[in-house]
Amino acid sequence: MLRKKMADAGIAAAIVPQADPHAGEYLASHWQARRFLSGFTGSAGTLVVLADKAFLWTDSRYFLQAADQLDGTDITLMKDGVPGTPSINDYICSHLAAGDKVGIDGMLLPLSEARAMTAAFAKRGILLADDFDVLDQIWPDRPALPQGKIFVHDIKYAGIAAADKIAAVLERVEAQGADAAFISALDEIAWLLNIRADDVKYNPVATSFLYVAPAGKSVLLIDSAKLADDTTAYLAEQGVAVKDYSAVKDFLASLPAGAKVLIEPARTVSALAAALGSKAVEGASPVAMLKACKNDAQIAGVRAAMLRDGVAMVKSLMEIEQAVASGATFTELDVAKVLYRHRSQSPLFFDESFGTIAGYGSHGAIVHYEADEQSNATIHPNGLLLIDSGAQYLDGTTDITRTICLGTPTDLERRDFTLVMKGHIALAKMIFPQGTCGTQLDAIARRALWAEGLNYLHGTGHGVGHFLNVHEGPQSIRLNYVPAPMTPGMITSNEPGLYREGVHGIRCENLVLCVPAMTTDFGEFYKFETLTLCPFDRALFDTSIMTAEEIQWVNEYHTRVRTMLSPCLNSVERTWLEEKTAAL
Amino acid sequence: MLRKKMADAGIAAAIVPQADPHAGEYLASHWQARRFLSGFTGSAGTLVVLADKAFLWTDSRYFLQAADQLDGTDITLMKDGVPGTPSINDYICSHLAAGDKVGIDGMLLPLSEARAMTAAFAKRGILLADDFDVLDQIWPDRPALPQGKIFVHDIKYAGIAAADKIAAVLERVEAQGADAAFISALDEIAWLLNIRADDVKYNPVATSFLYVAPAGKSVLLIDSAKLADDTTAYLAEQGVAVKDYSAVKDFLASLPAGAKVLIEPARTVSALAAALGSKAVEGASPVAMLKACKNDAQIAGVRAAMLRDGVAMVKSLMEIEQAVASGATFTELDVAKVLYRHRSQSPLFFDESFGTIAGYGSHGAIVHYEADEQSNATIHPNGLLLIDSGAQYLDGTTDITRTICLGTPTDLERRDFTLVMKGHIALAKMIFPQGTCGTQLDAIARRALWAEGLNYLHGTGHGVGHFLNVHEGPQSIRLNYVPAPMTPGMITSNEPGLYREGVHGIRCENLVLCVPAMTTDFGEFYKFETLTLCPFDRALFDTSIMTAEEIQWVNEYHTRVRTMLSPCLNSVERTWLEEKTAAL
Repeated sequence: MLRKKMADAGIAAAIVPQADPHAGEYLASHWQARRFLSGFTGSAGTLVVLADKAFLWTDSRYFLQAADQLDGTDITLMKDGVPGTPSINDYICSHLAAGDKVGIDGMLLPLSEARAMTAAFAKRGILLADDFDVLDQIWPDRPALPQGKIFVHDIKYAGIAAADKIAAVLERVEAQGADAAFISALDEIAWLLNIRADDVKYNPVATSFLYVAPAGKSVLLIDSAKLADDTTAYLAEQGVAVKDYSAVKDFLASLPAGAKVLIEPARTVSALAAALGSKAVEGASPVAMLKACKNDAQIAGVRAAMLRDGVAMVKSLMEIEQAVASGATFTELDVAKVLYRHRSQSPLFFDESFGTIAGYGSHGAIVHYEADEQSNATIHPNGLLLIDSGAQYLDGTTDITRTICLGTPTDLERRDFTLVMKGHIALAKMIFPQGTCGTQLDAIARRALWAEGLNYLHGTGHGVGHFLNVHEGPQSIRLNYVPAPMTPGMITSNEPGLYREGVHGIRCENLVLCVPAMTTDFGEFYKFETLTLCPFDRALFDTSIMTAEEIQWVNEYHTRVRTMLSPCLNSVERTWLEEKTAAL
Repeated sequence: MLRKKMADAGIAAAIVPQADPHAGEYLASHWQARRFLSGFTGSAGTLVVLADKAFLWTDSRYFLQAADQLDGTDITLMKDGVPGTPSINDYICSHLAAGDKVGIDGMLLPLSEARAMTAAFAKRGILLADDFDVLDQIWPDRPALPQGKIFVHDIKYAGIAAADKIAAVLERVEAQGADAAFISALDEIAWLLNIRADDVKYNPVATSFLYVAPAGKSVLLIDSAKLADDTTAYLAEQGVAVKDYSAVKDFLASLPAGAKVLIEPARTVSALAAALGSKAVEGASPVAMLKACKNDAQIAGVRAAMLRDGVAMVKSLMEIEQAVASGATFTELDVAKVLYRHRSQSPLFFDESFGTIAGYGSHGAIVHYEADEQSNATIHPNGLLLIDSGAQYLDGTTDITRTICLGTPTDLERRDFTLVMKGHIALAKMIFPQGTCGTQLDAIARRALWAEGLNYLHGTGHGVGHFLNVHEGPQSIRLNYVPAPMTPGMITSNEPGLYREGVHGIRCENLVLCVPAMTTDFGEFYKFETLTLCPFDRALFDTSIMTAEEIQWVNEYHTRVRTMLSPCLNSVERTWLEEKTAAL
């Protein structure tokens, strides 16, 4: 059916990305077209269809799953990142002829990517047709747009009223030479308007676009089914009118010719940039830094959420440990259930913040492993169990990884764990000047591993939203360059790891808050305050390779965890926690 | 006179940069126009002349000197980097009117800067006229182009014949989609052809341009006065023809229309890019990475040079220490003389690699201090003396900084010095995976200082040429992002510091060679081998704040220094070195 439409439109190759019009990481089912067309269900992957063949590009996380799910189709798996695998653009450039057209839906293609693609293809005389929008025609029973109601995120959690946030954003818009902004990123809209919804699994956002303009001229483009009288009234109070989601192109096209509308090219799709035309002013998001730096109410909320999340973690870890020790059948999926049960009993719980990763033994070495009925391993009283999980609470978002040993740890398990913790501790203790970006800090967390010829290939830290996406920018602590400076109020993960294929995986993750450290003749210095409250497995520390300062850090952290959590635990749990937090 | 020419050409503002047609850091006197016109002699600064006023922009190193030298002129000092000082482009944009013309000599303006300038001015309707070339007319007695003869850098030092280097460069040129390259950077030409000269103080380069093309079609554009019969013959043997330096524009313009000539926009001036026109292919230098990764002959040469340089340093430090202790008048300029005397007695000595920085007491806190007759301080038997110096030897280039205490050190001096050394040692011991760039390593050298609210604002490490420029790229260990990966064969400085204004300055610098460390399941890992051989002042170490590993590093380094240098010293010097290298 897709190929028929391709032939009708004179398209030699169609690209179907894992994407929505909002540059989202997680997609509502309405945009799971790649999944529908290919049968591959992974969270990353792009389908490329030619007249007589088809390919799916995905990364190493999904090689096994994709091979399995593509079996019996005519789709060939292309392993991204494996030497010899061409990029999509390279493949197209070397297999299409001059004059051929590549079709893609411009509502699913960020402007920055569209440009890169156009430039790559132009060298071979290949054309990009970014108006190839046929999904509605070829996808029977395409899921509707999310219909759930939006709700207001209470000011007692959000801290700042939407109208005040809009004013702050408009200052940044003006500083960039524009007089309005068009925002596509759903978490930016949710933060800015203090609204939430349940549209995207794990991300409490509302499918919408936002035009931000002075003097109460802002407009939220959203499906009317998602609005109730009180939320419409709330939006009006904040100076925000409402138009229908489907009117977005017309709305942008109808803005007066002299308008200067700021868009971020990486988060605005090419079809909407085209609708704006010469009215577009390109620049950095005016929202990202404001959203990243949490205000006092948000920070107080996160501290409270961390206390509840820590209690849920302690109860869960105790239950998991006892279940495994009891000899009963207890699986990776059971781990996720235990965590969900304890978290969901906590006040202000809304949802998980991502799918729980519970990887036992060699499964722990698969970085984005998520157990399913087929893979689900039974956990035995030996070896390592990696548990990465988190929750959305109305007052904050959590994300924590603990690696625990279920029996007597081996020397290798202790050594590997301790090397990872040396990096975690070094980053947690870091003091750094104003202006330092995550790329400069990343090696601090890797040094102990590098010294032994070890490494992990994921980032060391990502920004975390406030009752919002568990992954947010602009800051990031990672090998590649991300210029956003670490700024007070930012919440970032600290999660070095180590993965030995077929053996075990280790990751140690807390969330940290950037706070002022001191002011000297040499300027402002910042540091991290660890927010997460949950013991690390003390049986896994090899103190013979730790410095006195590192041991002291662990002991002080565990004392704080015990002091904070104990009042919320019963006596059995308290005793368990006391043992788990005894000095090294 | 300049203003007359400006009026004739309808120029509202003329820009006279500190620049030559080769993007050089040091300039031959022929291009010291900014110095001639302003009277300011510093190594960085740009003159901007308007009809009724004039300005000199320079950075904090030169605020005092510039204020002094501009006194009595109509030139206003603009302090770069001081809050409130506009950039040159901003000043021009806010003080010129639409339609005004800004004049600059396109032979002194890299293409990348010309573009940034044009774009900035265009927003205000201001035009850039990059053909404002009036120096010959307004500069009586303008120094001639350098006339010294070039000489061949012997293959026993260079390691690889020019013809073979050209072949390797052409492979990179082809990989970038070009069929020839045009090289303006003098150190790249000197390296590629294995030629040297004495054209630019401290940089043993020959003023020239090089067109690199296959099948012996390469052309060196150079003043014929600089060639002797044997060097012309040598060039012919390497497949390089010769044309006159002044013919460069015509030569580029005369290349056939279909030619694809690779240029690096940051190192090719706009006038020459214009002469190439559509024949230009822009890309990274095809020479920089090849030049940066030293071959075995170069590395052996540097090791030998380091031995001789270490001997000269030890003899100098001993002489300086004894002179100061003797009570005789001994000044900062005397320090430079002593170093020059000992180095110049060494075989294969060619020149210093930069002007010696000998800063006593508070002078040490002025990062690029160079003593002159006025500032020249007498050194007393107390306080810190910072000595940064280096030499050009036929077999290698050196660059070393030692900070020594001339009496009994204070607690602050010891603490500051030790914090700097903790960073130096951490970087020296670093092991890191293939692909790591200097920006990722920089914080390793700063961590101990940052933890105390201290910092230094210069880079931690720069690349060093081989009998070539003491500053070279592409690698750099610094706060801002430089993507070039640390690669085996690269020689880089390791030079953290600490500068307390009005008190003292500390810098501890060795050169390090990147070498393979190990290969594991996690890939290739590299490390640094310290090349420089000279003791650090052991009286300045505060072992109470050092780890056992740090003390061990110092002791092992000092043992190596003693073992390597002692056979080249007389018995008095040996005894002195033994004391200086005794275990901490």
